[in-house]
Amino acid sequence: MKNNTSKTNRRKFIKGSTILTAGLISTPLISLAHKKSITNTEGLYIIGPKEGYAPEIGTLLSTMTMMRTWLVYGVKDLTVEQLDYQIDEQSNSIGAMLLHLAATEKYYQLNTFEELEWGTWNEDIKKEWDVPMGLGEKGRAQIKGNKIEYYLSKLEAVRENTKQEFAKRTDDWLNKTEPFFQDQPTNNYCKWFHVCEHESNHNGQIKFIKKRFPV
Amino acid sequence: MKNNTSKTNRRKFIKGSTILTAGLISTPLISLAHKKSITNTEGLYIIGPKEGYAPEIGTLLSTMTMMRTWLVYGVKDLTVEQLDYQIDEQSNSIGAMLLHLAATEKYYQLNTFEELEWGTWNEDIKKEWDVPMGLGEKGRAQIKGNKIEYYLSKLEAVRENTKQEFAKRTDDWLNKTEPFFQDQPTNNYCKWFHVCEHESNHNGQIKFIKKRFPV
Repeated sequence: MKNNTSKTNRRKFIKGSTILTAGLISTPLISLAHKKSITNTEGLYIIGPKEGYAPEIGTLLSTMTMMRTWLVYGVKDLTVEQLDYQIDEQSNSIGAMLLHLAATEKYYQLNTFEELEWGTWNEDIKKEWDVPMGLGEKGRAQIKGNKIEYYLSKLEAVRENTKQEFAKRTDDWLNKTEPFFQDQPTNNYCKWFHVCEHESNHNGQIKFIKKRFPV
Repeated sequence: MKNNTSKTNRRKFIKGSTILTAGLISTPLISLAHKKSITNTEGLYIIGPKEGYAPEIGTLLSTMTMMRTWLVYGVKDLTVEQLDYQIDEQSNSIGAMLLHLAATEKYYQLNTFEELEWGTWNEDIKKEWDVPMGLGEKGRAQIKGNKIEYYLSKLEAVRENTKQEFAKRTDDWLNKTEPFFQDQPTNNYCKWFHVCEHESNHNGQIKFIKKRFPV
């Protein structure tokens, strides 16, 4: 009985929420109302230790997996034109933002797994990733014309490496600290939390742009 | 010597990054380049257990504190006109988004601390919080004319309550689970991770709007 009430309330809430999508803001909850399109979500909303990883690393990874699922859900059906769309001259396309997220994760891998000081990576890496990392004018000129599969495969390949490296480490590694944000002591957990919330930051912008595609 | 190199590279990176702010995207790192304005940041970038809280709850709180600091940093000097500014007819103002974040946290408090089913809170609470929670047309009509202090004090008051409730609980509470997102098992850790990343989602939109204020 309690369960039924709960389900009814939940449905009411989701139903009520869809009315709000005309506004600037939609919470992830709202954009997930059409749940049929999301697959492979077993345990997605259980944040905590995960098999194959040290407990804290698994917990961190579970937040990253949830975030990534929501991000991908919102872009997976976009056309090339939509991925290339710029809302104004200074804006970046959704496609460029997706590649930017892969670049960010790649650079944090180099910084935290290979312990390279920020920006000291080799020229080949810079050649591949500096433009999406930096976005701006060069990003607008160079990152276009790609299908969604291109961006998703880049994101997946980088994430696969993150998972492999996470699996090799103990939780102590999360507490390795160097002066980083604002030159203050910053541990690896913090850097990877940033990689995670940074996806949400851009996902907010992606949702904003999606509501303003030309009809 | 290693330290000096590190600092030089860091500065180079931050300096280089400021060039990118003309684009749609700025990472939190970039917007924090002017670090003089951020205070009380001791331990801000050490994600992990915090005194006065169970270890996992403290870790979660440390992510929320970092996120909130970055959010507040970006809005604390905005004028009433800037807080009220709408980029287009369907958009929400930065002020409305800030109150929306307080409302979201309030509702997750009721759901996870008081164990109320979503939306079953009393009329007084709905009267205060349903409009900022929902945003849209009513939010645009009703949330305006307030100074930044108004929004920050709302956010702070709600967060203070979160901290007090967090302090009373053990880590077991984080694993309390009910069907929630997509009707799938969702634990309290997940709900509060969402409260946290949701701030980043809106902060991405806030940054987007800030770059497009009328001159």
